[in-house]
Order: sequence, then structure tokens, then C-alpha cells
Amino acid sequence: MSTTLYVDLMSQPSRACLIFCRLHGLPVAESVVNIKKGEHRSAAYRSINPLGLVPFLVDGDFTLPESAAIMAYLAQKHRGLVPDHWYPEDIRERAKVDSLLHWWHTTVRFGASSLVRERVLAPVLGVPSLIPREAFSTQARDAVAALAAGSLCSALRVIEGHWLGQGREFLAGGRPCLADLLIASDLEQLRMMDGAVEGPGWAELMGPYERVRGWLDRLEKYCMPHSRDVQRVLVAATAKVVGMRGRSALNPKL
Amino acid sequence: MSTTLYVDLMSQPSRACLIFCRLHGLPVAESVVNIKKGEHRSAAYRSINPLGLVPFLVDGDFTLPESAAIMAYLAQKHRGLVPDHWYPEDIRERAKVDSLLHWWHTTVRFGASSLVRERVLAPVLGVPSLIPREAFSTQARDAVAALAAGSLCSALRVIEGHWLGQGREFLAGGRPCLADLLIASDLEQLRMMDGAVEGPGWAELMGPYERVRGWLDRLEKYCMPHSRDVQRVLVAATAKVVGMRGRSALNPKL
Repeated sequence: MSTTLYVDLMSQPSRACLIFCRLHGLPVAESVVNIKKGEHRSAAYRSINPLGLVPFLVDGDFTLPESAAIMAYLAQKHRGLVPDHWYPEDIRERAKVDSLLHWWHTTVRFGASSLVRERVLAPVLGVPSLIPREAFSTQARDAVAALAAGSLCSALRVIEGHWLGQGREFLAGGRPCLADLLIASDLEQLRMMDGAVEGPGWAELMGPYERVRGWLDRLEKYCMPHSRDVQRVLVAATAKVVGMRGRSALNPKL
Repeated sequence: MSTTLYVDLMSQPSRACLIFCRLHGLPVAESVVNIKKGEHRSAAYRSINPLGLVPFLVDGDFTLPESAAIMAYLAQKHRGLVPDHWYPEDIRERAKVDSLLHWWHTTVRFGASSLVRERVLAPVLGVPSLIPREAFSTQARDAVAALAAGSLCSALRVIEGHWLGQGREFLAGGRPCLADLLIASDLEQLRMMDGAVEGPGWAELMGPYERVRGWLDRLEKYCMPHSRDVQRVLVAATAKVVGMRGRSALNPKL
């Protein structure tokens, strides 16, 4: 009974799932679904995942959408391969990880992905805006970008002051958990903001958050070489948009 | 060692947690934090929950934010009181519930709460808009409302066609799970749209989704009388805004 993880390397949650599987040597095959080429809308992929999203897990006759649920399931299925701190068995320790995972969606995920979409992917690379066509205008885009930036910055303040408070090395304690991977993956995407038409770049966004920057570095080192391998596509895409905009960057990844 | 759940009855996730606790007779005290009066920002509440959000659980020396994590924790802590289908022990069955819970945030929750905020709470009741002041304009509000409505309607289509497909009575199978309560609670809030300055009302929003309407009715009956008790504040608020706007409603709750 084979297990396959469907991913797109330009999808933040997909990258987090890939790092997780490779880091623990899980017996999971990887299959790329290229969203840019529209492969997620193909009949072939819709027959596998009717929701048309990635990441998506097929484990024999069992199928599962949603990155956080996929990683939690794999962590429990492969207890012998995945150390407990990633998704603890103890119900209180696990509840802390679950609360981080649920907190993530409407804070970091909404903020970072909407900001990059409206300031880089749509205006620079021609990906459709999140705003329905009939309501679209430059002012509308500015409003959505402002909403996203506000959500993101307040989330960064919470990570800096609350989740990483009291000398914590990772979000739920001294070692990383599933939420570290997912939240960091959404933040890493902000490197593309150095190619934004307008709005803050990476250094401006992350500058005030010393603990967040330290934590991103620690997590990347913890997950080497997989973190670097999996992020190669993002690094290349960032270099491309920065080149297109000619913006001078203080982005150590470039 | 006492357990207290901090809630606001006008908060959708708070209502879902309350229904869950009362339905199963959990030994959990309820404490109201009135957001409209700014009690969530008070020093007293900040000393309990530095994040200043509801719902929030205090269980002896253990504290927990995030509605979905709170209910999952209580379901596991009180296995003897909470039937397995609400949050199954089997890792595959549980993964299905987890995937629904993670799916909810950026679809139904973002869509319904942002739509009600920009079309009812802000323009009719004077609650601040989600859009930062410097980016605010009527056109900006229309864009955010359009984004929210788009997200909500595509989520309703997914519930109708996918989660409630194949004759399923509830979102994860024949009996309700945690996600049914949370997702339904966010949808029930849309009754307030009958008091919106503009935009679709309840009947127009829910009209196309026969299975969704049937499921909401089933779930409400399943959770009686707690579902009705807990929703009283929402029903009163809806009647108030509908009265203010003088809109003729086809809203069975009024």
C-alpha cells in the first residue's frame, strides 16, 4: 500500500510537508503538481483530489487534504520515525501545538500569502489578484494589501513577544513542532517582497523582530539539508522578481 | 483544580465551544468577557490571556487559546463524557476531522466573519472596519467585502458538493464532529446579513445550498436546547440590525 504526497514547490504548506517527510525519512513518494501550469485543475488531478489543492496525501485508500492535518497524521502513523516533540502524545503538549496550528491560518498565513499575492505575484508575475474582477481597482488592491500587512505585522509581534517569549527556542518549547515548519514556511515566502512594486521589503518587514529572525535561522539549521533543498525554487523565484524590479536587497538568501 | 472557559456570546467560536461543553455536561465554568465593552483589553483579562482573545481555556495551571484546540483538548480529557465521533481516537478518522478544522479558517471563517464585519458590524453598529484607517475608503470596503463573499460562496459550494456529498448527514460522516459546530457557528452569523446596508441577505446567501441548510437544521436539533440557548444573543442582535435597516427578511430565526 503506497503513500504519495502531492505538492507544488511554490506552495508554502507543500514545502513544510516535504521538509517534514524528508527530515524523518518517511516512506512517502513525492509527486509534483505544477499550479502555474494549471495541473491542479486537470481532470487527472481532480480524480485524485476533487478539491484541486496541494498538499494532498494519498495513503492507500485513505486520502487527506490540509498540510497541518497531513503532518499530524504522518507523525502519528510513523511514531518510530518522528520524535515526539514534533506532535506530542501528551494531550496538553499536543494541545499547545494544535493551538499554534489553528492560530496560524488567519494570522501569518492570511497576512503573508495575501501580501505577496497582491504586491508581487499579481502585479509582477501576472498571477490573478485575490480580488474578484468586478471589484478590482488599484485602490482595492492597496486596501487588501494593507489588511494583509496589518494582519502579518500583528502576527509577527505575537510571535516575537508571546510564542518566542521567556527564552523559548522554538514556538512550543525547546525543540521544533509542526507549527514551526508551517509558520516559518509562510514567513520565508516574504523574501519575495524584495521584488514588490511597492510595500516593505524583507529587511524592513523582519527588521524589528530579532527573535523571529533568530528562530528562522535555528529552524533552517535544524532541518538541513532539506530546508535548503526544498527552498531552492523559492530562492530562484525571489532572485527572478528582484531582478525584474531592480530593487537593491538586503536578503541573505540571494 | 478548576476549569474555566472565557467566552463572548457574540463570538462565533465561543458559541461553538459553549454548545460543546453544555451538550456533554463538561465540568467547565463559563466566564463572559464582553468584547463590545472592551473587557478583552482590560488588564484583568490580559493577566489571564495575554493574547486578549476569546475563547480561552484555563484548566488549573494549563492555559489554551484557539477554539478548535480547546474542544479537541476537552474531548480527549473527558473521553467518558464526549462520544468518540466528536473527535475520534482512530488516527484516520481523527485526521478527517483535523482536515475540516484546518480547512475552515481561511474559507468559511475568513469569508463569513469579514463579510458580516464590513457589511453589518462596521457600517450599521459602528464596530471598526478590518481595513487600516489610512487605507480605508468605500471602494476599499467593497473590495474586502467582495473578497470575503467570494471566499464564503466558494466554501459553501465545497460544503454542499464535497463535505456533504454522497448522502453524508454531517461533515465527517453520519454523526457530528467538532468541525460541524465551528463551521455552523460561523454560518449562523450570516443571519445578520439581513441587516446589511448592501450585499446579499440570508435567504440569498443560503438559497442555492439545500444540503447546507438541511445540515444546519439537523445540527441545531442534535444540540438542542443548548444550540438555541447559546444563539439567543445572536438572534437578538440580528433582530436589532434588521429593525435598524428595515429590511424585509425571510429569516426563520426572527
